[in-house]
Parts: sequence; C-alpha cells; structure tokens
Amino acid sequence: MRLPHVAVEEADAVDIGIIGVPWDGGTTNRAGARHGPRQMRDQSTMMRNVHHVTGIRPYELANCADLGDTSVNPVDLLDTLKRVEEFYQGVHAKGIMPLTAGGDHLITLPVMRAIADKSRPLGMVHFDAHTDTWDRYFGDYEYTHGTPFRRAIEEGLLDPKRTIQIGIRGGLYTPEDKDWGLEQGIRVVEIEEYFDLGPEKVGQLAREVVGDGPVYVSFDVDGLDPVYTPGTGTPEIGGYSTHDAQKMLRALRGLDIVGADVVEVSPPFDPSGATALVGVTMMWELLCMMAEKVAAE
Amino acid sequence: MRLPHVAVEEADAVDIGIIGVPWDGGTTNRAGARHGPRQMRDQSTMMRNVHHVTGIRPYELANCADLGDTSVNPVDLLDTLKRVEEFYQGVHAKGIMPLTAGGDHLITLPVMRAIADKSRPLGMVHFDAHTDTWDRYFGDYEYTHGTPFRRAIEEGLLDPKRTIQIGIRGGLYTPEDKDWGLEQGIRVVEIEEYFDLGPEKVGQLAREVVGDGPVYVSFDVDGLDPVYTPGTGTPEIGGYSTHDAQKMLRALRGLDIVGADVVEVSPPFDPSGATALVGVTMMWELLCMMAEKVAAE
Amino acid sequence: MRLPHVAVEEADAVDIGIIGVPWDGGTTNRAGARHGPRQMRDQSTMMRNVHHVTGIRPYELANCADLGDTSVNPVDLLDTLKRVEEFYQGVHAKGIMPLTAGGDHLITLPVMRAIADKSRPLGMVHFDAHTDTWDRYFGDYEYTHGTPFRRAIEEGLLDPKRTIQIGIRGGLYTPEDKDWGLEQGIRVVEIEEYFDLGPEKVGQLAREVVGDGPVYVSFDVDGLDPVYTPGTGTPEIGGYSTHDAQKMLRALRGLDIVGADVVEVSPPFDPSGATALVGVTMMWELLCMMAEKVAAE
Amino acid sequence: MRLPHVAVEEADAVDIGIIGVPWDGGTTNRAGARHGPRQMRDQSTMMRNVHHVTGIRPYELANCADLGDTSVNPVDLLDTLKRVEEFYQGVHAKGIMPLTAGGDHLITLPVMRAIADKSRPLGMVHFDAHTDTWDRYFGDYEYTHGTPFRRAIEEGLLDPKRTIQIGIRGGLYTPEDKDWGLEQGIRVVEIEEYFDLGPEKVGQLAREVVGDGPVYVSFDVDGLDPVYTPGTGTPEIGGYSTHDAQKMLRALRGLDIVGADVVEVSPPFDPSGATALVGVTMMWELLCMMAEKVAAE
Amino acid sequence: MRLPHVAVEEADAVDIGIIGVPWDGGTTNRAGARHGPRQMRDQSTMMRNVHHVTGIRPYELANCADLGDTSVNPVDLLDTLKRVEEFYQGVHAKGIMPLTAGGDHLITLPVMRAIADKSRPLGMVHFDAHTDTWDRYFGDYEYTHGTPFRRAIEEGLLDPKRTIQIGIRGGLYTPEDKDWGLEQGIRVVEIEEYFDLGPEKVGQLAREVVGDGPVYVSFDVDGLDPVYTPGTGTPEIGGYSTHDAQKMLRALRGLDIVGADVVEVSPPFDPSGATALVGVTMMWELLCMMAEKVAAE
Amino acid sequence: MRLPHVAVEEADAVDIGIIGVPWDGGTTNRAGARHGPRQMRDQSTMMRNVHHVTGIRPYELANCADLGDTSVNPVDLLDTLKRVEEFYQGVHAKGIMPLTAGGDHLITLPVMRAIADKSRPLGMVHFDAHTDTWDRYFGDYEYTHGTPFRRAIEEGLLDPKRTIQIGIRGGLYTPEDKDWGLEQGIRVVEIEEYFDLGPEKVGQLAREVVGDGPVYVSFDVDGLDPVYTPGTGTPEIGGYSTHDAQKMLRALRGLDIVGADVVEVSPPFDPSGATALVGVTMMWELLCMMAEKVAAE
Repeated sequence: MRLPHVAVEEADAVDIGIIGVPWDGGTTNRAGARHGPRQMRDQSTMMRNVHHVTGIRPYELANCADLGDTSVNPVDLLDTLKRVEEFYQGVHAKGIMPLTAGGDHLITLPVMRAIADKSRPLGMVHFDAHTDTWDRYFGDYEYTHGTPFRRAIEEGLLDPKRTIQIGIRGGLYTPEDKDWGLEQGIRVVEIEEYFDLGPEKVGQLAREVVGDGPVYVSFDVDGLDPVYTPGTGTPEIGGYSTHDAQKMLRALRGLDIVGADVVEVSPPFDPSGATALVGVTMMWELLCMMAEKVAAE
Repeated sequence: MRLPHVAVEEADAVDIGIIGVPWDGGTTNRAGARHGPRQMRDQSTMMRNVHHVTGIRPYELANCADLGDTSVNPVDLLDTLKRVEEFYQGVHAKGIMPLTAGGDHLITLPVMRAIADKSRPLGMVHFDAHTDTWDRYFGDYEYTHGTPFRRAIEEGLLDPKRTIQIGIRGGLYTPEDKDWGLEQGIRVVEIEEYFDLGPEKVGQLAREVVGDGPVYVSFDVDGLDPVYTPGTGTPEIGGYSTHDAQKMLRALRGLDIVGADVVEVSPPFDPSGATALVGVTMMWELLCMMAEKVAAE
Repeated sequence: MRLPHVAVEEADAVDIGIIGVPWDGGTTNRAGARHGPRQMRDQSTMMRNVHHVTGIRPYELANCADLGDTSVNPVDLLDTLKRVEEFYQGVHAKGIMPLTAGGDHLITLPVMRAIADKSRPLGMVHFDAHTDTWDRYFGDYEYTHGTPFRRAIEEGLLDPKRTIQIGIRGGLYTPEDKDWGLEQGIRVVEIEEYFDLGPEKVGQLAREVVGDGPVYVSFDVDGLDPVYTPGTGTPEIGGYSTHDAQKMLRALRGLDIVGADVVEVSPPFDPSGATALVGVTMMWELLCMMAEKVAAE
Repeated sequence: MRLPHVAVEEADAVDIGIIGVPWDGGTTNRAGARHGPRQMRDQSTMMRNVHHVTGIRPYELANCADLGDTSVNPVDLLDTLKRVEEFYQGVHAKGIMPLTAGGDHLITLPVMRAIADKSRPLGMVHFDAHTDTWDRYFGDYEYTHGTPFRRAIEEGLLDPKRTIQIGIRGGLYTPEDKDWGLEQGIRVVEIEEYFDLGPEKVGQLAREVVGDGPVYVSFDVDGLDPVYTPGTGTPEIGGYSTHDAQKMLRALRGLDIVGADVVEVSPPFDPSGATALVGVTMMWELLCMMAEKVAAE
Repeated sequence: MRLPHVAVEEADAVDIGIIGVPWDGGTTNRAGARHGPRQMRDQSTMMRNVHHVTGIRPYELANCADLGDTSVNPVDLLDTLKRVEEFYQGVHAKGIMPLTAGGDHLITLPVMRAIADKSRPLGMVHFDAHTDTWDRYFGDYEYTHGTPFRRAIEEGLLDPKRTIQIGIRGGLYTPEDKDWGLEQGIRVVEIEEYFDLGPEKVGQLAREVVGDGPVYVSFDVDGLDPVYTPGTGTPEIGGYSTHDAQKMLRALRGLDIVGADVVEVSPPFDPSGATALVGVTMMWELLCMMAEKVAAE
Repeated sequence: MRLPHVAVEEADAVDIGIIGVPWDGGTTNRAGARHGPRQMRDQSTMMRNVHHVTGIRPYELANCADLGDTSVNPVDLLDTLKRVEEFYQGVHAKGIMPLTAGGDHLITLPVMRAIADKSRPLGMVHFDAHTDTWDRYFGDYEYTHGTPFRRAIEEGLLDPKRTIQIGIRGGLYTPEDKDWGLEQGIRVVEIEEYFDLGPEKVGQLAREVVGDGPVYVSFDVDGLDPVYTPGTGTPEIGGYSTHDAQKMLRALRGLDIVGADVVEVSPPFDPSGATALVGVTMMWELLCMMAEKVAAE
C-alpha cells in the first residue's frame, strides 16, 4: 500500500503493522501461498487513501507501516512456527496491531500465540470454506493448514464460544469432521445458511457472537467463490462474492479488533494477480477499521 | 473420485458406473470437450466421502465404480454414435446406472438410445444455455451437439412433456429456433424467468414437470455463467451460479433418476481446471442422489 | 458481427455504424485497450440475428455496417483526439448513429464533440466503477481516461443533470474526488446503493434521470465485477454481473439514444477473450435498441 | 497481411491468393487448427513490405489478394474435402497460385486434387515432424491428418520420387510406419540427419530432390521445435528453429513453386499468438518466392 | 505410457517399474513438483511403441508396469524420506529396476538408499543446472533439493569419481559452492564447457566417467534451457536443448543402468503441459535403454 | 537484486546505480514495458553473489544500490523525456554509473543526453532486432521507440562509427529503412551475418568497433529469439539464444562501459516472468563488468 518500510526494532511510533508470512509448509495439496505476500504487495499499489463508503482515511487516523516479511524455514515446520511467533512477540511488545498477509492458514496459530492473552482468549470472525479445526493429519501430524484453530482452542488462545465461521462447505472425509467444533460451541455458518440469511444478517450475527472482547479476524480467501479467488490451494465452488464479503467486514466496524489476516493467496494458481487484488482489498477494509479503533483509543 | 476402475464385463456387483465419453465430433465451433473426461478425473481427487449438506455417504449406499472411457472414432460421427450406444447397452444390461462425463452434448443421444424404454420415455431435467433441439445443421446434418434432443424426441426416447430446460439464453439465428421445443410441450425456463423465480422455485418446478417416471439429468456446464465455467465450447454470458445450480440439483432428490451426465467441459479453454472442478462437483451431487435411490430400492 | 465493412465515404444508406477506436493513450496505469476493437471483432462472430428476449431483429430494422477503425496517433494524444473527432464528424454528417468499440474511456470525449448539439446537450447513462470526472492528472494534464466527462461538461456537450453513473466504487485519492460531479448535479449510484436497489430500480432511475432528450450510453466494462471482465486496465472488485447489466440496458429501451460505446476492453490482460465476449454482448444489446429507434423514426 | 479481400469470382487480376481453410476434422487427438486462419490473419498485421534479406517486394512483383476462407462442414469430413477441392478448382481456373493457411494437414489433399496435373505430378518439400503417409486409422478410415500424402501418392497427384520430408521424428506405433514412404522413394530426412547436415545442406538437398518440375511446399508448424510453435495439435520435442526453417525455405528460391501452405496452427493451445506469428512469417517467406516466380514469367 | 498399473506386492514378473513420487517438501523456493507425476502420466499417452532412431521396442524386450505413486507425507520431510525408501526397497527386492517421475530432486536420495550397494557405490550421469551438492541450508538443515548428492556421497551410496554433472550454471551464493564436489572428484561440466564440447563429446565423456559399474541416471529438467521446460522450480537461463539432451542420453546406451529418474517437473508453472511432455520423452529414452539392458541379461 | 534502496540525493558513496524507467509512451503497437522494472525487481531475487564463469563478486568490487524508479508522465512524452533526463543528470553528477531497467527503447535517449560528453560521443554495443534509427513516425513525430538512435546521432551524443547493432531482422516498410544508419557508419550485423559468424566472432567484432572510448551497452530483449523473451512489444522470430547473448556480453569485459540498459521487457505479454528473468540475468552480466571497471579505476 505504498507504506514506508520500517524494521520492527525501529517501529516505535507505529500503530498498525502490515506483515507478510511467506510460508506454505502446512499445505497438504497445492502449495504456493508462500508467494502470496509478494504478489499482494504488488497489487496493493492500486489502493488509495479514503474509504469510498465510510470515508475513513486510515493513514490520518493511525501510523501504519510495512514491517516486511517474517523469517521462515521452508523445510522445517516447527522451526517456522517458532520464528513467526517470535517475530509477532516483538511486534506485540511494541504495542503494534498486526495485519498479516499469508501464507497458508497455519500461520494464524503462531500469531495468536504471540498476541493472545490466555486470561482473556480471543474471539474470532473466521471467513473460510473450511473449519480448519481438524485434529490430526496423516496419522499424527498436529500442525497443518487444516488444524490451526483446533490447536488454538486447545491451547486456550481462542474462545470457541466467541468464534464464528462463515462459508463452510465442501464434501467431508468423515461426518465427524465438523462435530468437534460444534461441540466446543463454535457458531458455524455453513454456506447454505449463509445464502439463506444474506450478508447483512450474517454480519450482525458475527457481532453478536464475538461480543465486546478482543477479536481476531481471519480471512481465508477460499471462503469466497473461486471465480473471485482462483489463486488458492483448496478451492471449493459455491462461495460468497467479494461485495458480500465487504459488507460482512464492514459490519464488524467498532469491534475490538486486535489483529487480522488474509491468507491462502497462492500466486502460482493465478498469475493474473486477480486473487491478490481481492486479498489486498480485504486488507484495506480491515485496515480502515483497525485505524478507526486506534483513533478511538 | 478415486474409485476402483472396473471393466464393464467384470462389473457384476456395480450399481453406479462412472463413464467418460472423450468425444467432441458433434461440435461446430470450438472443439475440445474430448479432453473433458480426463481433466474431470484429475480434479475428482478433490472430492470426499460425505455430502456436507445431506450427509449422504454414497460409497456406503451403493457400489460405485469407474468404468473407464467408451471407445470413440474421432473421424466418424455415425460410427462413434454406434460405439457409444453399444457400450451403454452393455452397462444397462448389467443393471448399472450410468453417470457420464462428456464429451460434447451429442453424446447424450446414444446414451438415451441404450437406456430408454420406448414404452415409457424418459423425462429430463436439462441444464443448459441452449435448447439443443435444433433440427438440421449446415443443410442436412442431423447429428451435432445442437440437435440431440430433437432426435431423442423424434425417436421416442424422450418425453417432451416431462422435459424441462433451465437457463436458455443467447441470440438466435432465427425466431423459429425455439418454437419447435415449445410446440412439443417442453417447459423452457429462459434465463430471465430463472432469475425472476430463483433456484428454489425452479427446482420445485422441475420436480413437477418430470413427475414420477424415469428421469435423466443432463447438465451442460454452459448453463452456468462462463465465469464459473470458462472452459466450454459455446459460452453465453449471464447464467446461474454454481451455488444455485447445486440448489436446483438438490431439489431433485428422491426422483427416479436412471442416468445423468455432465457435458461440454473443454480443457483447452480452461487449462487451470476450474471448469472441470465445477463439473466434478456437479457429478458428486448427482452421485449422491443416485446412490440414495439405489439404497432405497 | 459479420457485418459488411463499408468505408464512411460510401456509407450513404447506413443507419448504424460500428466503429473501433484502437487507442489507449489516455491510460495512466495498465495500457492495452488499443487492442480492444480487434478482439471484440473476433468475438462478435458468436452473435446471432434475433434478440432472445425482446425478439428484436436489428438487421431487419436498420442498415448496420462496420465502418472500420478510426485513425489514431499512438504517440500524440491531442492529435488523436482531433483525428477521432474528425472521423465521427464524417459519420455524423451522413446521419449515421455511432456504436463504438474502445479504446480507453477518453475516446468518448471526441465522439461527443462530434455528435453533441450544444444547444441541447447530451444526457448520459454511464456504467463504470469510476466517475471519470477528475480534473487534472499529474499536475496539469487535462486529458486522461479519468477526465473525459469533466471536460465534456465544461465544454457544454454533456448535461450533468441528465447524467447517471452506475457502479462507482473503489478507494479515493482524496475525498474531493467525487464532490465535483455531485455538485454539477450528476446522479451517482455508488455500488452499495446499486446493490440495495437492484438492477430493475436502477434501470428505472436511469430512465427518469435522462428523460426524453438525446442520450448517450457509455459502458465501461470495469463497472462489471472483474470476474466477468478481467481484461481491463483498472479492475475494481465488487461490481455487478453481466446479467444485471443486461437488465439495466434493456430498461433503456425506447429512450432517444443517439450514440453508445463499450470501452476499456484490454486483451493483454485477458487473452482468453472472455472480456471481449462480454463487451460484444453489451454492444449487441445496444445495437438492438438503436435499431428499434431507427425503425420507429 | 493487410491485403485487400477479394471474392474468388471477382479475382481476375490476382496472381497469388491467400486462402484460409478453418478445419480440423481430420485431427485425431487435439483439435483446434480450425481457428488457425483467423489467428494468422490477426498476426499478419506485423508483416511489412520488403524482405529484409532478399530485398524482394512481393506486392510490387505480383497482385496478391486475400481470398477469404473456404467453406467447410465441421461435422462431415468427406463433404468438407469436396467443398475445399471445389473452392481451389475455382482459384486454379483463374490462374491464381494458392498460398494456404490451415487447418489440419488433411486439407493439403483437396488442394492438391484441385491444382495437380496428373500427367505431371507435383514434387513436394514437406516440413513436418510426421510423415503423414500412414495408411488407415482406426480400422478403415482413410482420411485423417496422418494420411494425406499416402492418398495423394496413390491418386497420382504427388510424385514420391520428387518428395522430401524434413524433420521426421517421434516414437512409432509400429516399425512399418515409416517403411511405406521409403519404398515409394520419398527422401525422408529424419531429425537426426537434419541436425547432422544442417539447414544449408538440407535446403540444397531439397532443391535436388524436387528438381525442375512443379513443386508444392507444405509447412506443418510441428516440424519446428515446440518451443517455437507450442500451439499445435501433435507437438514433438526436438525440432529445428525458426531461423533454420527460414534458411531452408530461402534455399528453395527459384524453384517452380505452384502452391504452398502452412498448417496445424492451433490457437487454443497458444492463446499468446506466438505460433501464429511464426506461421505467418513462414507464409511471408513463401509469398516472396512465389511473387518472384510470378514476376519471372 | 498406457502401461498396466500393478501394485508392487503383485509385481512378480515386472522388469522395469515406473514410479511417481509426488513430493516437493525439499523445495526452498517455488514448490509444485509434487504435481509432476500426475501431469507426466497425462502427457505419456503421447508416447508410442518403437524408438524412432534406435528401433528399440521396449515393451517387447521387458515387462514394464506402472507401479503407481509412493506414499509421501507433505508435512514431514524425514517421514517422507523413510516412506519413499521403504517403497523402493520393496521394488528392489522384487528385482525391478525403478524409473522414477519426481517430485523434487531430494527424492533421489531415498531411491539411492534403497537400491545402492555400498560395497559398490553407484556412478551417476546427472543432468542439471545445479550441482545439488550443497551442504546445509538455512543454518543446519541437511535435507533439501539442493543437497541430495552431498548426502549420497557422505553415505557411501554414490561414487563421486564415477559421477558427472552436465549443464551446471547460474550465479553462486559463495565461491565455495562448487568446490566441494570438485574436491570429491566429481566431473563437473559447466554449461560453457558443454557448449564448447557439444553433446556428442559430452556424451562420450559421460561414458568414460561412469565406466562399467552400476549407473544411475538423474535428469533434472532444469538442466535444459527454460524455454523447453518453463515448468520447474529453479529455472536458469542458458541451458541445452531437448534434442541435444536426447543425443547425450542415447550416448549412454549399453551402460549398466540400474535406475533413473526425471525430476523437478512443476505443473503450476506450466499448465500447458509442455514441460511434462519433455519429461516424459526423456523417460521414454531412458526406458528404451533400460529395456535393452534387461533383454541383454 | 536485493540491493539496498537509496534515494539519489543520499547516494554519495554509490558507484553503480540500478534505476527503473517505468514508461512505454514511445511504443507504437503493444504497450506494456512500463511494467518491466517492477517485474524485473521481482525476478532479481533469484540472482546471487558470484559470477559462475568469471568469478566476479560485484558487490565486493563496487558499491551498488537500487536508486528506484524515475518519475514519468504517462500522458506526455516530451515531459517524460525531460523528467528522465533530469533524474540521470542527478545520478551522473554524483559520479554514479547507471544500469537501467526499461521501459521502452526511447528511454535510452534521455539517459544518453544526461551522461554523454559531446566532445567525446559514446560508442554503443546495441543488441536488438531493430535498428531504432528510423526518422519520423506517423508523419512528423520524431520521438518513438523506433527513433532514439537517429536522434542521439543527430544530437552528437552517439558516434555512429563506434556503434554496432547485433541481430537486426524482420521485414521492412521501405528499403530505405536501413540505409541511413549504414551511411552514418554504423556496423550493422544482421541476424543472418550473426548466425554465419557466431557469438565469439561477433563479440570480438564489437570490441573492435567500439574501441577504447566510452561505451554504452543497450540490450533490447527483442534481439533474442521470442521463445526466450515472449514478453516484449515487437517480437521478431529467428533471433539469438540467451546463452549466446551471454557470450557476447562477456566478450565486452574490460571495455570502458559508462552505462547500460535492458529494455522492452513487457510483463503483460509474459505473466510467467520468464522474460523478466532473462532481462535480469543480462543486467547481472552487465553489473559484473561494470563493477570490475569500478574496481580497476
């Protein structure tokens, strides 16, 4: 977004930090999300200064900076989780709210580890075609892009009762796949319910579920219909439109957002950059709300 | 769909057979559908085991097998029609319900010839941008991908009064193009009427039109808007979405479906495979309903 | 559209002339629209003879001809504006209504200069994601694809009070960007209002705004959602669908349309030709209405 | 090549006619060559007026015209062969030398039928990865894009002893595949021999083989390495370069060329148009030599 | 290659087994090679029965079968190495020579672990732009696609003095990058030397280096110029052509080849399949030589 | 190339400055080179630290920095020429040698205006398919991407007798097109002569032509065969390979190079980035030689 690039160590006056996590080592099928941050940076030059609906001018309300990409280790998943967590601990210690460009969805876990206060776990508004609350993969692998929120709930970072998932769909491996989350109290809005209710009501429902506590917004671009975001690893047909996603995001205005991410943009599957442009526009929506919160404090 | 491949001759215990017809010799403009079955097989590895809405587990309800591709003759249309018909006669004789991946739309004709009982012609739910009930092409050629259902009605295979066509649109060569079908009693839902009614009502209408008799479901991917299925030979802008197509298909649950196909997936016009993924997902919807019927018998 | 090609000088009996303007010298970011007319000519072979909804047969109602492309000067903007204006003056002098395939949006300005009667300025129905009423670019450049309608209003060619803009969206550089047009009296339908009203009401609103006077219809393909028209220079996510654009266009039937264009089709960003097919279909809608007007006179 | 379009009936003063044959019904695997003529017309706007090596200015030496596309019948192979033959008979009767843009390679057969004088069969310089002298396909189909020259020799149109094939390669179905041609006396330059000799010697060899009699030049773009011509139906890796093909073509200067074609350009497999640009450049080389011959007569 | 698919357990009569390893977890930059085996299977339908130069008919000389893909674990590198090694141990125990379709280059290491006899280490003819003999990556990660042959030499599987690497090029991180291999005695043919010598002499040199002992042939498609194989993870401009690679491979005829692979085909970076077609053709060359060896035993 | 970004004003210790000129306003046909600098920056992350043939380590020999992009004015050619010239004057005043990423070829003119000493005009080694010494375009437009070197010679910036052009080819509009340069004394190596001589002799010839004086190296990527650089505005088939271009560049080692550029990389025509990777690699070759010169001073 043509923001100044600032190293974390020197980022003392920054309120909101945009961070890339160029990693897809948790991806089980079509890798490529490691290239997402770069392509989103490219497309972000098309963003402007004033939100055309709300009139918010984020760069006047908050100090925003591009904090660059975290270090990752493409051949070691656990080491990457540690590196990302440490990077975000540094960001969090400076009082900077992170707005992240992924990377696959597993990266949300180390971010939450760095910024969540276990005495007051995070609520979450989660846009996705998949619940990402599976347990194990391939026998006994507990960390993949299908498991971050199971882990986050088990670790006490995320409060399932203040979590809503919007757009879930696609065939299941077993019928148990979606039971665990429901048992924890997650409000799962499958795509059929989404289409019945429409974006306004779902946006309102999200506000109600997360309430007044700290909220994380995690936007997996595969929640959208793949015609909008073909460049992603696990496309599922039959999702919502970009316009309706924008409506739902705008409904979150005024919540206590403490961090957000846009994940699973995978440039090899969309060299045109259209998917990245969508991802960046969603980041712009998030940035405006986060800046408004900064200004309100 | 990761099904076992079984030769027809050995397919004694099979209830539902998935068959490819790699042929586009009836295509007058942009050929390529001959490659559809292969790309759909590729994409079908993304399908899973349980239907996320209905909870149907087709592989537990019915014996499903991949019966491979029919023989075709790329340089002789009439010979191909004969080869395909003979293949399906073999399938039908074993009591297997065919679920076909095309191929251009002409292939539905020999399938119907093999499975229809003329004393009780088939009803049909037909998703398409075109009626495919033209008479002749290029003077006196009676077999092209624009004529199969004219032929099927003339041959007594298809009951026009129990036939519904959903999504018809696009300019016409002559105003007479659409009159013949209406005169036979086909219920034509042009795209404008579709948008006025919405998918639920159109799904209900389809149930009423086809009634209790044997039904064939023919899904031409060009009925969808070309943003969902760019890889097809005759794209017409302004169609329905994949989600709404799924809704309409699910409305057919419980009908006496005796066969189905998904046709006109043309990989050369969509190397990304998105169109094939859509086609496979529609086959998955059909498979679940067909398996449920098997279990109910 | 498989029309006969006729030179303007010899076009005495022509009622409606289809003209290409292969130029993108007013484009500030992603050039390519200069190739739009050619790709639209290619795709236009898919058009047919009878409008499937209205039943209009334009080639029977009016003499239609392809008048070829205007001369342009790729390295001199002002000279190009002059060449295009002169071409259209010749067309106008013959009593031919122009239906134009762009080119970037700046080309509408010289067209209006040639056909507008300043004593009775044009009304306009303008489909676009951008108002194109900016003032200056890059200090003091008054002619870019972001400024044509500011110039047209200043020059008295266009009546802002009879102008409606549909689909405006995207971040702004400054909040003043959209004020000028509103102050002139333009009816701006931002995309959020569009989605609230729906295409029928917006079509009706357009009729009311432009009233009985002469009307120009300018269709920038970036007003559509970029999933329908990825091949354009300034995509903005979250637009309308092709079907809904068709509905709005059909709502204009019976107005006093004196010229129309479809602009910003940029083939380098969509080699598949899907965007051009959309553009051509919109031209087909416009052609049918223009032919009906010819017949009514 | 920006030539005037002239109908055959009116082409009295034309020396060289450029003709498209938009047909691929003889293609057994990847169809698409039916779109070749159109894409080559598009790319031909990049050609200029003077040959940069020989200095030939073809448009000053001969009357050249674009005679349009022949009629074809996409669903009837034999009817198409007849239509194409009749078109070329008309061309030949006017004393026009045809330079053809295919289409698949079967189209050369009806062209030869129209222009060959059986009392003095044609010699041929044939650039290709395949001999196209197979006998039958699929049992007993005698006409496919793999058989035209077997038929032409059998029909007495083509003199095998004055025929050279350059670039043959690729695995064989049976070892007999290449024996027949050798027995007839065709000089087959397999790709290995080509690389050993180099383009100058092969060009010289071609002159010797065809001698002084009438010569047809048939240029299948798959003779080139597929990096130069990815847009073709049967790519075989390991061919010659465009530069070396140009060298070989230029070596044919002064021969009694009576017709030529460039075939198997298949746009769906190369939307960028690079293959068509190569095809057009080869046509330009042929045109210059043919014009020189006209001027010499 | 249209071979029968046989499970390893049942592969008693098989001489040569074609195996896919769908894995790219050792890739540090552009992943995607995990999809290579599938795309190569698709393209392999273009292969035929007789080698057009040597006349070898591999399927008559040896029993060839497709043994399917090995199991892999996309989120655990060490576990994958173990799974692949075990699979190949099973293959080796049956006396089957493996011909592998990768996957990234790290997969050659577990293959060698399974088939090498440490008392008589393998020689290797290695086609590549990179030596893949780096030591560590990212601090202390010893297994990536840049390190397999360092490990293989250290483990005593590979004899560096009987190893030749052909086509090495590209900038270096440090000058030490290429020293280690030279010190071990590897014969490194950098691309400049390759172009000076030409493919015949380099082929001869390869024969001399590997001598009479058991030889493994490892063909990384990035050794070719990226115009031939754009679909690969680490393209380096300025490589050899496919034709010259074929020449070098054919020069290996008669060596004691005990296994071979073609690796680093990455479909996401070449949806056209051209790279996979090249890969398959190289496998065909290898298969013919391996079959000849079987027949000679 | 992962270099530090430094503003010109603060670039006191810099020896070699890498500069982008994102402009294609001099392009008459296929625009897009304005996006070249960005894509080359992306691809440059694949470059490393040591030249694999010469062993040069440029970053140890010279202070290298990325000076960012010049200002341009997309809608005013003359203003852009002025802005670029001023930027390079600032660079030159600091004693920094410029290495430029274009942009279309016209940009070389303002660079030469800024750095040439008219008392001692520049020699030039010019790689290109076109001479770029045309006079006027479109009547009387003297500045396009086809005219920079005519202007540079007329202005006394460039010494035609110390200028060599390598790879010229393609049809001509008039035979006079190439006479002017020859009359001035330019040594034009047409592509046919290039292939006769080979890269070593042409490299040697270049050294002789430019001699000891100051030399500018201008590398238009369309000099290469378009299979290597499809992403360019005016592709001409039949050029040299990347490897041979590298050989020719390396032959220039030791000359008094005072500036260099790589131009006409046009990303819209090659979204894969392959062309940009080639462009960056040529910049790497130039950088190494320029750094060596710095160290020698």
